[in-house]
Amino acid sequence: MKKLYIYLSALFIFSCSIESNENKIGIVIHGGAGTILKENMTPELENSYMIKLEEAIRTGYDILKNGGPSKDAVEQAIRVMEDSPLFNAGVGAVLTNDERVSLDASFMDGKNLNAGAIAGSSYIKNPISAAIAVMEESPHVLLSSKGADDFAIEKGIDTVPNSYFITERRLNSLRSLKNINNISYEDPFLKDSKYGTVGSVAIDINGNISAGTSTGGTTNKIWGRIGDVPIIGAGNYANNDCCGISATGWGEHFIRNVVAYDIAAQILYKNEDIINASKNSLDKVKATGGDGGVIGLDKNGKVTMEFNTAGMYRAHMDNDGNITIKIYKD
Amino acid sequence: MKKLYIYLSALFIFSCSIESNENKIGIVIHGGAGTILKENMTPELENSYMIKLEEAIRTGYDILKNGGPSKDAVEQAIRVMEDSPLFNAGVGAVLTNDERVSLDASFMDGKNLNAGAIAGSSYIKNPISAAIAVMEESPHVLLSSKGADDFAIEKGIDTVPNSYFITERRLNSLRSLKNINNISYEDPFLKDSKYGTVGSVAIDINGNISAGTSTGGTTNKIWGRIGDVPIIGAGNYANNDCCGISATGWGEHFIRNVVAYDIAAQILYKNEDIINASKNSLDKVKATGGDGGVIGLDKNGKVTMEFNTAGMYRAHMDNDGNITIKIYKD
Repeated sequence: MKKLYIYLSALFIFSCSIESNENKIGIVIHGGAGTILKENMTPELENSYMIKLEEAIRTGYDILKNGGPSKDAVEQAIRVMEDSPLFNAGVGAVLTNDERVSLDASFMDGKNLNAGAIAGSSYIKNPISAAIAVMEESPHVLLSSKGADDFAIEKGIDTVPNSYFITERRLNSLRSLKNINNISYEDPFLKDSKYGTVGSVAIDINGNISAGTSTGGTTNKIWGRIGDVPIIGAGNYANNDCCGISATGWGEHFIRNVVAYDIAAQILYKNEDIINASKNSLDKVKATGGDGGVIGLDKNGKVTMEFNTAGMYRAHMDNDGNITIKIYKD
Repeated sequence: MKKLYIYLSALFIFSCSIESNENKIGIVIHGGAGTILKENMTPELENSYMIKLEEAIRTGYDILKNGGPSKDAVEQAIRVMEDSPLFNAGVGAVLTNDERVSLDASFMDGKNLNAGAIAGSSYIKNPISAAIAVMEESPHVLLSSKGADDFAIEKGIDTVPNSYFITERRLNSLRSLKNINNISYEDPFLKDSKYGTVGSVAIDINGNISAGTSTGGTTNKIWGRIGDVPIIGAGNYANNDCCGISATGWGEHFIRNVVAYDIAAQILYKNEDIINASKNSLDKVKATGGDGGVIGLDKNGKVTMEFNTAGMYRAHMDNDGNITIKIYKD
C-alpha cells in the first residue's frame, strides 16, 4: 500500500512537471500594423509576406522546441524580419527626411526585468542583437545615435554602410511623400504608408518571457525623432509575473499611453485577461487619436494579436506547433 | 419657506464651487535624490539649496495662485533650478565622458495626455521649455541629439554654447571619476556623486495636472546614454484621472520598472493611495538593484515625496500656501 502511494505520488509529480513544461512554450510575431488592405496587395506580394512570416516564426519556435531560451527565439525570429526588405526594420527600413535609414530596437527579459535598447543607429546590421548587447554588456538600458553605433563597433557587433539598408521602394515612398510636404507634420498613416515595425514575444520551457521590437520608424522623420520602439513600457515590455508585449503603430500615441506596460499593469493590478487588456489599451490609443496593434503572451501562454488598423502582419505558434499566420482582419 | 430653500440651495452650490476650486492648487518640486548627507554639507551650501528650492516653488505657486495653468507653474519652477548651478540640470549639469554637457527633459499635460521630450541636447538653454515646444509645435513626443538642437533653433528657442553649462565643480567631479575608471561601468551612485535631476508636478485651479523633469544625466556617461528623464512613463507622467509624477534616481532602474506610470496604474486600477503606490514602486526599483525618489500629486492634491536614498532635495506648497522644504530624511 505504501509502495503504491509512493508510486502514485511520483507519477503525480512527474505528470505535473510534464504538464507545466508542455503547456508553456509559445511564440508570436508581428511585421507591423497599418492600412494593409487586400485590394492594395498583389497575390505575389501577399505570398512573400506569408512565407517570410512563417520562416520567422518557425525559426523562433524551433529554438523553443529544442529547449532553448525565449531570448534566442525572439532574437532570431526578429533577425529574419530585419534581414528581409519586406518589413520596416533593418534592410528595407523607411527613410528619414535626409534619405538615410535610422534604426531603433529594444529587448526585455521577463525573468529579471533587464532591458536594452538602441535609438537612431545608422550602421548596426541587426538592431535587435545590439539591443540585447546593451542589456548584457553595458550598465545602461538605452543608447542613442552615434553613441549606439560606437558601442556596437566596440563590442564587435556587425555594422554595415547605411546604404546596405536602403531599398528603391522606400526611396520612392520618401520622394513621393516629400512632394506632398517637405516636413513631417503629417499623420504618419498617409495613404499607402505601412508601418512595418517588427516584433516578437516568446515563452520558453522554463516559463521565461522575452519581448523584442525593431523598426526604422516613420517615413520622412526629422529632428532625431524617437518613437515608441526603444521605449521600455511603450513599444516593448516583458515580465514573467504577467506577460510580454510588443507594439506597432503610431509611436507617439503608444508613448503617451505607455501601451506595453499599461497592458501588463491591467494584468498585474486587476487580473485582466491579456486580450481584454490589449483592447482597453488600444482604445486609449484611439482616444488620443492614434492607432496600431500589439502582440503578446501571458504567463500561461495565452496569446493576444489585437489591432485597430486595417491589418497587421502576424503569426503565432502554440506549444503543439499549431501555426496561425494572418495579414488582414478576420 | 420656499425663498429660504432657494437661498440655502444657492449658498450650498456657491460654497461647493468655491471649495472645489479652493482645494485644488498645489505644487511639489525635487532637486534630485542621492547620497545627500548632513555630514557632507556645509551650512552655507545647505542654505543655498534651501533658498533656491524656496525660490523655485514660490515661482510656481504664485502662477497657480493667480489662476495660471499648471503647465506654466511647472515650467517656471523648473527653469529656476535649470538656471542654478546647484542642480544637475541646465547650468551645472554633470559632464559626459568627453567633457560636455548633454541635457534631457520631458513634460506631460494631464488634461489630454500630450507630451514632449528632448534627449541629448548640447545647446538648449532651458530644456524644459524645449520639451514643451516639442509637445506643442511638433507632431512628435521625443526628439534627440542634434535633431533636438536643430528643432530648438528652428523654433527660436534660446540656445547657448555648451560651455555655458559647464561648472568647475562638475569638471572636477568628472576628472576624479575618470581617475577611478575611464569608462562608465560604475554604479552611478559613486561616493559623493549626487543625482541632481530636477522636477515639478502641479495641479491648477481647473484640476489640470502637469509634470516636468530635467537633467544632465549621469557623470561620465558615454555612448549617447539616455536615462529615464525623457521617457514618458519612467521619469515623468501626468494624467488628470489619477496623478502627476516626476522621478529622480538611477535612471536605468526607473526605466525597467516604468516607475512614473506604475504609480499611476496602481491608482487607476486598484485605487491605491499615492504615497503607498510610490513606496511600492520604489520597492520594485530596490528589488532590481536601484534607488532614487519620486514626487507627485494626485487629482485631489495629495502629495508624495518618497525616496529610498539618503536624501532628496524637495519642497511642497499646498492650496493655503503652507510650505515644506526638506533635504534629508525626516
